[in-house]
Order: sequence, then structure tokens, then C-alpha cells
Amino acid sequence: MSLNVTQKLIQEHLVSGDMNPGEEIGLKIDQTLTQDATGTMVMLELEAMGVEQAKTEASAQYVDHNVIQEDYRNADDHLFLRSAARKFGLYYSKPGNGVSHPVHMQKLAKPGKTLLGSDSHTCANGCMGMLAMGAGGIDVAMAIAGEPYYIKMPKVWGVKLTGELPDWVSAKDVILEMLRRHDVKGGVGKVIEYYGPGIDELSAMDRHVIANMGAELGATATVFPSDKEIKRFLKSQGRVDDWKEIKADDDATYDLHEEINLSELEPLIAKPSSPGNVVPVSEIAGEPIYQSYVGSSANPGYRDFAVAGEIVKGKQIAEGLSFDINPSSRQMLTQLVNEGHIASLLSAGARLHQAGCNGCIGMGQAPATGRNSLRTTPRNFPGRSGTREDSVFLCSPETAAASALTGEITDPRTLAMKYPRIKDADKVENDPGMLESPVDPATARGLELEKGPNISSIPSMEALQDNFEVPILLKMGDNISTDEILAGGSKVLPYRSNLPKISTFTFEIVDDNYYETAMKQRDEGGHAVVAGYNYGQGSSREHAALAPRYLGLKAVVVKDFARIHLQNLINFGILPLTFVDESEYDKLEQGDVLQFENVRETIRHHHEFEVGVKDKSEKIRVRHDLTERHLDIILAGGIINWIKNKQESGV
Amino acid sequence: MSLNVTQKLIQEHLVSGDMNPGEEIGLKIDQTLTQDATGTMVMLELEAMGVEQAKTEASAQYVDHNVIQEDYRNADDHLFLRSAARKFGLYYSKPGNGVSHPVHMQKLAKPGKTLLGSDSHTCANGCMGMLAMGAGGIDVAMAIAGEPYYIKMPKVWGVKLTGELPDWVSAKDVILEMLRRHDVKGGVGKVIEYYGPGIDELSAMDRHVIANMGAELGATATVFPSDKEIKRFLKSQGRVDDWKEIKADDDATYDLHEEINLSELEPLIAKPSSPGNVVPVSEIAGEPIYQSYVGSSANPGYRDFAVAGEIVKGKQIAEGLSFDINPSSRQMLTQLVNEGHIASLLSAGARLHQAGCNGCIGMGQAPATGRNSLRTTPRNFPGRSGTREDSVFLCSPETAAASALTGEITDPRTLAMKYPRIKDADKVENDPGMLESPVDPATARGLELEKGPNISSIPSMEALQDNFEVPILLKMGDNISTDEILAGGSKVLPYRSNLPKISTFTFEIVDDNYYETAMKQRDEGGHAVVAGYNYGQGSSREHAALAPRYLGLKAVVVKDFARIHLQNLINFGILPLTFVDESEYDKLEQGDVLQFENVRETIRHHHEFEVGVKDKSEKIRVRHDLTERHLDIILAGGIINWIKNKQESGV
Repeated sequence: MSLNVTQKLIQEHLVSGDMNPGEEIGLKIDQTLTQDATGTMVMLELEAMGVEQAKTEASAQYVDHNVIQEDYRNADDHLFLRSAARKFGLYYSKPGNGVSHPVHMQKLAKPGKTLLGSDSHTCANGCMGMLAMGAGGIDVAMAIAGEPYYIKMPKVWGVKLTGELPDWVSAKDVILEMLRRHDVKGGVGKVIEYYGPGIDELSAMDRHVIANMGAELGATATVFPSDKEIKRFLKSQGRVDDWKEIKADDDATYDLHEEINLSELEPLIAKPSSPGNVVPVSEIAGEPIYQSYVGSSANPGYRDFAVAGEIVKGKQIAEGLSFDINPSSRQMLTQLVNEGHIASLLSAGARLHQAGCNGCIGMGQAPATGRNSLRTTPRNFPGRSGTREDSVFLCSPETAAASALTGEITDPRTLAMKYPRIKDADKVENDPGMLESPVDPATARGLELEKGPNISSIPSMEALQDNFEVPILLKMGDNISTDEILAGGSKVLPYRSNLPKISTFTFEIVDDNYYETAMKQRDEGGHAVVAGYNYGQGSSREHAALAPRYLGLKAVVVKDFARIHLQNLINFGILPLTFVDESEYDKLEQGDVLQFENVRETIRHHHEFEVGVKDKSEKIRVRHDLTERHLDIILAGGIINWIKNKQESGV
Repeated sequence: MSLNVTQKLIQEHLVSGDMNPGEEIGLKIDQTLTQDATGTMVMLELEAMGVEQAKTEASAQYVDHNVIQEDYRNADDHLFLRSAARKFGLYYSKPGNGVSHPVHMQKLAKPGKTLLGSDSHTCANGCMGMLAMGAGGIDVAMAIAGEPYYIKMPKVWGVKLTGELPDWVSAKDVILEMLRRHDVKGGVGKVIEYYGPGIDELSAMDRHVIANMGAELGATATVFPSDKEIKRFLKSQGRVDDWKEIKADDDATYDLHEEINLSELEPLIAKPSSPGNVVPVSEIAGEPIYQSYVGSSANPGYRDFAVAGEIVKGKQIAEGLSFDINPSSRQMLTQLVNEGHIASLLSAGARLHQAGCNGCIGMGQAPATGRNSLRTTPRNFPGRSGTREDSVFLCSPETAAASALTGEITDPRTLAMKYPRIKDADKVENDPGMLESPVDPATARGLELEKGPNISSIPSMEALQDNFEVPILLKMGDNISTDEILAGGSKVLPYRSNLPKISTFTFEIVDDNYYETAMKQRDEGGHAVVAGYNYGQGSSREHAALAPRYLGLKAVVVKDFARIHLQNLINFGILPLTFVDESEYDKLEQGDVLQFENVRETIRHHHEFEVGVKDKSEKIRVRHDLTERHLDIILAGGIINWIKNKQESGV
């Protein structure tokens, strides 16, 4: 059978299931990537699981999100992550080294491998002929522990690129064109595979730009073939031995088809406040801007900064404008310095920031009230910049640099200059400090995790009991989001590595007595909550399951669940139940005590069963849709216990 | 009469008083400097005063403290400050351009001039043959409005430098030697004037290092002569016409004498947690460090970064260490980039931050819990780094770079390499974006201040009434600090430009009902407070007088005042009174109503007078020690009204 690149990558890593779109498959994971904002919890999960050494081929812990240290907490997290990397056998990239995605690409990415990362833009490394996917923290912890990753087999969407990019049009405009055509849900359930003659002219880093923002299309992954350009890139990094060719078979087919003629593209821009809100730059040219911003994993390449440098060279940016340069890696920054591009940017009036995610995730560079910000970043969701009612436009470095000169949104084709076409270097300096290698396992065994006062281990949790009675502490309505279960924001996020502390904020928005009552109830057997439709919608944060579990939540009974939160409830051993007859929702009241009997045996053999309501004559009928694998996890008391048992039994 | 440099500068600017140490003198101010953290209030004060145009020769508004924008507030402040600079006729230096002190030195400093700045390290520009002094915000606002600055005539402390600095010893070690000898109060009431053959070898920027940390000695100012090195420096900046020679007369004398033989100095270090806690580096060599940090106005020169670059060139810093480079100005950063020093630092593993104050004032780069941080910054007071229980050492760039390589405190003389002696460039690139010039007055008149939602004008305040009755809302004990009057910290500081909002925190630590009660009482004639000894000690923040005044505070009756807070009370029109008989403190109770009669006339003619206590038979005797100038200010209702009246009457 003829296969496309995606199918080859999946087939090579398939450990369970069949490659039929929609069917659950298990994939062997070769590499993992964690960043600091999600990584601290992943490392605490590894500790709780009793994992000794990573079982992947290469796992790396990057520090790129929280690199501004306004107090001890971020600095302590960095030390903790380094100690965890050393203990568990991971690579470690220190703060200031840059954004995980380009650094991983430079140092560890290998054609033909799978990569799972606790960051939604992990897909960027699909540019290297890899199957690279973003996932939840615990999924990555499981992958590090050697477990497969389970997804539904995606459809493969072949996007044929033809023609050549005109002057002043670059890779960012390609992915903006995809977003213009298909909006932010166009890629859901699909792997996007680029092919065709047009990719020959795209450098590895250009492909990174396109693969990165596959996340904005909602795609499972984005895949490029591994061709001679990938070989050139790996050679420039001194890693040519890591190259192998991966291309689609000649008669490979795709589930879905698309074609983009690069020659017909023009500079594009996503208007506030969605990456899918794309129009030609020319359509909104003249709109005044307050800020122009070059950097992030959506335009991380040497070329992206160099072209901006060449455009502003010898000129001055518009007065009153903030021209923010966020280098994507320290290695690349050094190269940009050596080639004179940083001097060009600085002399023109730029602000040069430390390499890292920075403003892309609202860590600095937030725009002023009511002012337009032009960015090469991947996302412009409302408030992501750090300013609540922001107005962020997404564009290419060409458009950002041209607009920095004029102080208004400017089609770079209107600049009176020759297009500075930049060629990637064929050799880059090897900076040994970019990645600390894993220590040998014998040494690692003796190492301790370094935990500052704000870092707290995950307490051990019990397996699901057979018989229990739990009061309903909250009866909620429809569309309860994970923000209502456990808010994000600056009050809560600093405690991301401190479960006992972050738990104090659980359901605070819904009922500010919840924490106290739940804590009291915890030692008396725990509690349940009841809600309506679409329970757990919104952010995928796993703390929204882990924190209530810590407070003794045993069962959630709702009309239906949002998909990711359901998975998180299973992962943390909370029984996720729906009403068989939705009208029975009305029968339950806050304070009612639910009686579960013989539940371990029951859920193993029945999808539907009855739950008693204490002091009431009636019972209610509930249902679960758990697979055998899910049941194993729930019965163990969550995935941490499940893997811990497995590690201990040495299977 | 023969004069030293200090006396020449003072004589040239004397508008009142005589040059007898301890006597009040008034000085004409030629230049001012404001930074963003203090500048927003200064600009609001100028607005409230009705000032149209700065009356100084040159006034500059720098943005260097709050350059991390985590939400709209700092960004809005920047836009507000730029609009104020344009409206009031000031120079404006945008965020990312660098620290006020070196930028001012590069762009505006002139030998023979006076400079007043709302930053305690304003004294750094004393290196240029100027009388440069730090002051409160309102003092700088007054100077911008053309008013003299009043101080007590200082003693002049002549420090003769002989010999030459040995290899690996630099300017920072000279000022650390002064601190080792005299500790942090050694300079109080004095201007330190350096002279002698040793200064010939010190570059202008080396002298900046020494003058800057005169603040740590508590000195009023530090003065250097303007010699051929200052001419060379100004020439390198394209400003040779701004040079003039200023040197002490041959037979000039000093009130106090000191001598330092530079040849005998060795690398020094200030241990936690005081700049006066100085020992030789060799004494504590081997102590492990977590962080090494180069930058700040205490080591701002090209040389300071270049020497660090040369020391680490081609090597790697110790694993796990954070090597933070905070450039002091964008112009200098460009120069360091062009000369290859930034590449050396980056390749060795450094984190390169945006030009600005950054970690020096706790804005990022805070150290981890329980770890040692080595810094070239001027201060290591507990918690200033952002980490509450920090452990910060102060040293030269040589010591910082040597220690970055080893991971422990290291005497740079023990490095097996030749000392890289750096020469300052004789010509630097002129970057026109470093300073926006004032707009012409005609245009300025039509401009509006741009105020984001967190920036609020200072409301107008009434003149002191002749007869009023005010209840005592608080009766407090001894040593009430300005932190208790109005706390600093991250909860309060974001409202530094918003008087109505920051006022809600007034006296919160003492009595959390104060705000509510005072607001209620405000419309009914205001209130008074009573306290014991040393009222208003601690931080000089003027908000601690302005906020209670906004809430209707009319009079403060105490046993005695801390000096700076007393001045702030006068400035904001609050009657500062002491008990004639301290035992009468016991007669007053919270809730008592004080009756002031014919007070305008009374305080003008009597230092002591009686105040009634309503519903009590007895009166209490109070006293003030206000000068005629103070009385004018108090009677006008504060300095803002006083200058406003003056501006309006056109005097």
C-alpha cells in the first residue's frame, strides 16, 4: 500500500489500533518536550509516579515562559526543573537559551521520530519530517515513563504547494492564507501534510513557521517531508548523521485535498482578535500602530530577524513606537549579532529582549490601552498580550518591519527598496551551553529534587473504593468552564507547582465556601458535584481536575462533558458520570448524599447503573463511556497510581 | 578667596543664603532628570501647578524602571510621560534606551551645571564636573518650574587619589574602599570631591561609577573636576562644544580630608545586606554563587561590559549559573555588539536583557531562594533584588565575570590570563533615537496629556482655613514609618500615578477603617492625627503626605518628626505641629476634636500657640518650626497651590 508521510510516521509508531480515521490508536513516543510553565507539574507527576529514568530516546526540559524573575518563584522553578532533568535523565535548556520549539529543532529534532510536548505549538517540529504533537502535561509524563500516547486516527489533509513566493511575501503569509481559507477550526481531527514543488524553496525554518501555526487551525499535527533542505539544516547544526529521507510514496493519497499557488500570495494580516481573521495587508494599510514586534516560535528563524534588520538598516523607526525584538534562541541571537543584523535593529531604535517566549504569552511587552500592536506571534486571542482589551494584529516580519518605519500598518511591497532576500547560514556556531545533556543513570539515582518553598510534591491518592457515600457539595448549571473550576490569572498561576496552595482557589468563583467544606469533608470520605451540559469547557488545564481531586472529589454527575476535561477527570481518578435520563438532574439537590455500592465491580461490567440518594426513596440512573484502559486508570485511583503500580511491578 | 570645585559650582548657582556649612542655601537648577517610576507623579504635579513650559536649560524624562509590560499600566505610563515631555518642553528617552544616569551623561550633561533628579543616583553625573543631586519628585517639579532648590550648605570632603589602579582592580573597587572605610552614613551632609593625580587615569565612565555610589555613602553629591578626559568623552559623543574646564584653585581647601593610594587597592566586595559591608574578595573566595550580574548605573560603561566579555571570551560559564547582562544604554549596547563583546558574552552562556534598570530595582532577575547573587549594582539592601530573603554581593565587573566562570566567588587576579585593559572609544555612533528633543513651545501649548485609565490628575486642594474643627482619627505611638502611613510593594505601587486609588491604602496597616472614616469626614472639614516620636521615619515617598492630604488630613500633632516626612507634610500643606509639653500627648484621645482658631494669623507670628479640645476644658500647647518660605507654602495649601499662584500672578 502506498503511504503518505503522515501514514508512514504513524505506521512506524503504531502500538495499538488501526489506521482508520476516527479510531483510537496508540503511538510510541520517541521524544518529549516540556517547557517551564507546564513542566514543573510534569516533573512532580514523574516524582509521584515513581519514575526513575525517562524511557524515551530524548526528552528535553526547556525554560522559556517564566524567564522574568520578579521574586524567588520563577528562579526556584528553574532550579527545580534543572534538578528534575538531572534526576530523570532529561536534557535541560536554561532560561535565556530561547523558545523550546526552535531550540529543539536545532538540537534534538530527528526526521522519522514522534515528539510529544506539553505546549500547544509542539507541532512546529513537524517541519523536520516528524510527527510532533502538543498534549496535556500528564500525557507527556506518561510518554516520558514509556507509555504510548492515544489519539483518534486523524484524517490526512494533503496541501500541495506550487509556484514560488514573490518578493516581500514569506512563510507566515502561507499559513495566514490557510487560516484565511479555513479559520481556526479548519484543521480539527486532521494532520496537515504539505507537499509539492513549492516546498523546495521553503527553508526548514520557513516550514517551522507553517507547522507552528497548524495549532491555530486546530490540527492534530503538521507534517513536512524530510528532504535535502532538512539535510542541509541538520548539517548546518553539525548533525547531518541525524538525517534520513522521508517522503510520500509516489502514488500516495490524502483524505482531503488543498492547493496553494505560492506565486499568487500577497502579504496577509490577521486582525484582532482571532488568527483566523485574515485579510490582505493592503486592505487595512494606514491604520496607526503603537507597537511592532518580531519574534516568537511563529517566526523564529535567523531569516525572520535578519530580514527585519535589513529593512530598517540605516533608518529610524517612527517616533513614539515600541519596536520589540524577541530573539527565539541564544545561539541564533549570537549569529544575528555576528552578522550585523542586531546592530541594524538597535540603531534603528529597537528594544532587544532576552531570548524566550516573553510577550507572546503576555510576559512583558503588553501594549498600551486602546493602541494597536502588530506582531509576528501565532495568536491574538483577546487579552493574551497581557492587556485585557488589546488590539493585536498578526503578520510577517516583513510587514512588521515596514510598519515600524512608518508607524502605521504598511504593505512591505510599498517600501522603496529592493527586497532583501536572506539565505540561511550553512554552518552555525555550536554553543555547548544551549543544552545540558542528561547525567548518567547511576549518578542520577543519587540526586535529589531541589524544591523551593513554593514547590510541593503531589500527595499520594487512594484507589477508588468499592462502597462510599458522598454529599453533593455543588449543583451547577450548564457550560461550567475550567476557569470556574480553577481560575487562571496572576493570582492563581504562581502556584502552578504547589497543589495544596492552588487547591484553595478551587470553584472559588462558583462558591467561595467550597474549599473549606470540601477540606472538612475530605477526611470523611470525600464529595461529589453535579452539573448540566458541557461541563468543563474551555482551557485544557489539568489542575482543574487535580485540585478538586486533592480536595476529595470522587464523582462528577452531569448531562454531558467537554472532551478534554473528561480525559483529565479520568487521568486523575474521578468517576465521570452522565445522567441516563437527563430529567433526573432535577431530582438532585445540593446537600443530597449519593450512595455508591459495589462500584468497582459494577463499572467494569456495566455502562449504566444505579446510584442511591440517602434519605430519599428514589435512585438515579447514571452512565459511563469508559474504555478498558480508562477503567484500569479510574480503578487505580488515577493515572499516577496506575503507572506507579506498573513501574513497581516491573512490567 | 580660593575655591574648590564644589564651592565654585555652588557659588555660581547661589540664589539665597551663605556658603557656611549647615546654613540653608537656595540653588538655581540648570537641568533636571526624572525617571518613569517617580516621573509620572512629577508630571501630574506640573499639571496641577499649571506649569506651561520647563524653565530649566534642559530637563529630560527617562523611561528605565518599569520597562517590563505585564499589562497596560506600564505601557500607558510610557505614553503619558512622552505626552507630558512634549507638553512641558522636556527631552524624552523611550523604554529600552537605557538607564537615566548614563544616558544623561552621554546626551545632556554639561560641566559647570547643576542637575536635580528624582532618583537617588542622580549624583552619578557629578563625574562630569556638575553638581548633581537626587531629590523628591516635588522638588524636581519645582525646579522644572524654575524654582531654586534648598539644601543645607554641605561640608566639602576632599578625597585625594594617588597612584594607579593595579591590573584586575577598577573604579568599583575605589568606591567600595570608601564604603569599607566610612560605611553607609559616612557621607551625610557632605559633598565628596575627588582630586589628585590618581584621577587622570580614571575615564569619565569610571568616575561615574564612583560618583554614582556616593549615594550609598549618604553624600549630598560627589564632584569631579572637568578636565581633558571629560573633554575627550564629550568629543566622543560629538559634544565637544559643551566642554569647559573646571578645576579647584591651586590653594583650595577642604572641610575634611581623605587620601586613597590606588596602587594599594585590591578587588573588594560588599557582603549581604549592606553596601557598607565591604571585605577583600580574597577573604570570601570559594563561596558558591547562583547568579552573576553585570550592569546598572553603578557599572554602566562600555568598559564594564567589554572587560566581562573579554574575560569569558571563548569559555563557558559554570553549569547551572545565571549570567545576567543588563546593558545600561541602547547606544552603548550597539557599540558593544559592533565590537564583538556581546557575542563573547552570549557564546559563553549569558542572558542578554533589554537596556534599563531591570534587576537593580527588582524588576526581573530576582535570585532563587537561599542562593547567592553577585552583582555590579549599587545596592544590596534586603529584598531589593525582588527576593525577600536574598543574599546579594556587590563587586566589580572583573570579579563578576571571573566568578561566572567558576561558579563561586573568585578573585579575578587568580584567573590564568592577562588582564584585558579596555580603552573607551574616541567616537561613538550618534543614535538620534536616544533622545526626542522638546517640541517648540507654540506646538506644545496645543498638546494634551495622554492618560490611560490608571492615570489620574491631582485634584485641586484648598488653602489652609483660618478656623476649623477636626477630629483625631488616629492616635499612634512612636516610630510610625512611611510604610505604615502608605505601604510600598506590589499591591500599592502600580497606583503611583493614581492618587484617588493609592489613597485607599492609607494607614491601612494601622487601622483598616481609616480610609472610609477619613473620606466621610473629608466633606465635613477634614481630620487630624496624633503620634509620638520619630513620626514618618523610613522611605522618603511623598505619597505618604499626598495621600492623607487628599483624604482631608489638616494637621499632624506629634512628639517629633522624621526630617524628610516633615518636609513632605509642608510641601503638601499639612500643618506639622509638635507638643510643647510632651506629657500633653497623654491628654489627647482618638475621637477628640481639635479646635484651631485664627490659625493663619497665629502661625505667621507665633511659633507656639494653643489648640482647643472640644467638650474638654483644657487646651494643649503646640509648636511649629516653619521658616517664612515654609509658612508661605502651608498657607497656600501646599507647594502646588503656592507655585500655581505664582505662575498665575506672572511673578
